[in-house]
Amino acid sequence: MPSEFEIIQRYFSRPARHALLGVGDDAALLRTDAGAVLAVATDMLLEGRHFAKGAEPRALGHKALAVNLSDMAAMGATPRWATLALALPHANEDWIAAFADGFYALAERFDVDLIGGDTTRGPLTICVAILGEVPAGLALMRSGARPDDDIWVSGELGGAAYALHDAGNAAAASRLHQPEPRVELGEKLRGIAHAAIDVSDGFAQDLGHILERSGVGAVVHYALLPKFPCGDAQLQRRCVLAGGDDYELLFTAPQSARRELEVLSAALRLALTRVGSIRSGEAKLQLLDALGKSMATGRGFDHFA
Amino acid sequence: MPSEFEIIQRYFSRPARHALLGVGDDAALLRTDAGAVLAVATDMLLEGRHFAKGAEPRALGHKALAVNLSDMAAMGATPRWATLALALPHANEDWIAAFADGFYALAERFDVDLIGGDTTRGPLTICVAILGEVPAGLALMRSGARPDDDIWVSGELGGAAYALHDAGNAAAASRLHQPEPRVELGEKLRGIAHAAIDVSDGFAQDLGHILERSGVGAVVHYALLPKFPCGDAQLQRRCVLAGGDDYELLFTAPQSARRELEVLSAALRLALTRVGSIRSGEAKLQLLDALGKSMATGRGFDHFA
Repeated sequence: MPSEFEIIQRYFSRPARHALLGVGDDAALLRTDAGAVLAVATDMLLEGRHFAKGAEPRALGHKALAVNLSDMAAMGATPRWATLALALPHANEDWIAAFADGFYALAERFDVDLIGGDTTRGPLTICVAILGEVPAGLALMRSGARPDDDIWVSGELGGAAYALHDAGNAAAASRLHQPEPRVELGEKLRGIAHAAIDVSDGFAQDLGHILERSGVGAVVHYALLPKFPCGDAQLQRRCVLAGGDDYELLFTAPQSARRELEVLSAALRLALTRVGSIRSGEAKLQLLDALGKSMATGRGFDHFA
Repeated sequence: MPSEFEIIQRYFSRPARHALLGVGDDAALLRTDAGAVLAVATDMLLEGRHFAKGAEPRALGHKALAVNLSDMAAMGATPRWATLALALPHANEDWIAAFADGFYALAERFDVDLIGGDTTRGPLTICVAILGEVPAGLALMRSGARPDDDIWVSGELGGAAYALHDAGNAAAASRLHQPEPRVELGEKLRGIAHAAIDVSDGFAQDLGHILERSGVGAVVHYALLPKFPCGDAQLQRRCVLAGGDDYELLFTAPQSARRELEVLSAALRLALTRVGSIRSGEAKLQLLDALGKSMATGRGFDHFA
């Protein structure tokens, strides 16, 4: 059985390309770009909570990093460095090798360095911290939405949640297990979007965070929401409005940016859909059906509800 | 029962004093000092592995941050910002309030901002990532030890490990549950020490990391090691050499620094003890007893051994 140090040496010591010192000391050392602000976030995934027992390790390595990259995308930050704390029930080398492959494959696509971590024995737990850079003054915060902004969503909503209802649907499974963080979109939205968040807890709840932080309301037309095809209309509504884990970007932008966003959508080959608009007043979401009648928004994900 | 967002709002939203944006968005935003290098580390603590079920929450909050501050100390870095990912089996507000108090009390002593995190339900797990700053070129790495350097240790060794053998010993219990990270010492060692590490896995193993990284050997005199009083000599040897969790600093420095280190020891009111010296050659620790005979070093902690 490999030791803790052998595990790190064999599977988690690829050279850091953009750090002064990577894995192997008490801390990593790095230098940020002059003029850039550092963005920092962390997300923890637990077996039985965020993924099922027996989940495919390569996909898990991907997802653990993807959900953190998505936080960078939602800030308009360019992800640069990550740490990985990993608790493993036993040192199964095949499992670890596949997990590391999934993690590094995504890291290398976005030129992100794994610079440090912690390995311990325990119930399977993955905690990533991510560091990125964003030019000073251009970060996309939840608090920036203004009255008359358009509300936009990337990609489609509901696919990840639908995967839990239709295990045979490969497209839905891929949304759930191999989410694609919208990093390039986040970077391109700098200077265009007023506010942004990633859809991790459900569209209605995540839009609610923007409304609260910005002190504004919103009107959204359910018919306009880009929906993953789910068959049953009622189930689809639940998946689209309250299903989490899609990791699409939800953002607001001035009406004057419509043409620019259409061009961006084409350039990125990524659907960007205008679904409603920001209103002054109470931080409340008014969701309208095709007849203009109010709909219930459902509840998003709360770990302690 | 409070929601995930209420927990964060009530217990983990004290204002960040040194960040552009703290808890509450997709990521925190901060700016590093020009001329400083950023040091980054992470440590995860699990119930049943790093602490016993039913551990006192205030002490846990302290320890989760302390072990990370200790990584900064071992790099000679000044800790500045931390993130906290927390899995809780249930939302017990008394527990959370006490944990947060322990965490913030230590954070405030060192002027460290809690800037973000993640809260989820699961087996009690605490993962902290820490960011600090160190002037360019002055970080204390494991790789800097040179032949003829003195080997020094702060404080006393073995107390934390001894606490597991004598539950009634309050001084030992305090070493285990409320370790004091040697942050000021780490900062003062910039420009003096050649190499440093914190004693988390046991003296012999942690010194071994310096020897491997530096490509040097060492001679250490057991009689010189500063020892927590443990009663039994054999148990004491095990606790001092192979017991982890002391979080003292182990460092090497040129002989010319002896006077300076004695003055520093007095200024910090912290024992600094010279225990041996670095030798050229194979990365091996030669441990000598009072008669100059070789002693076994024992095994340090390995989570997968």
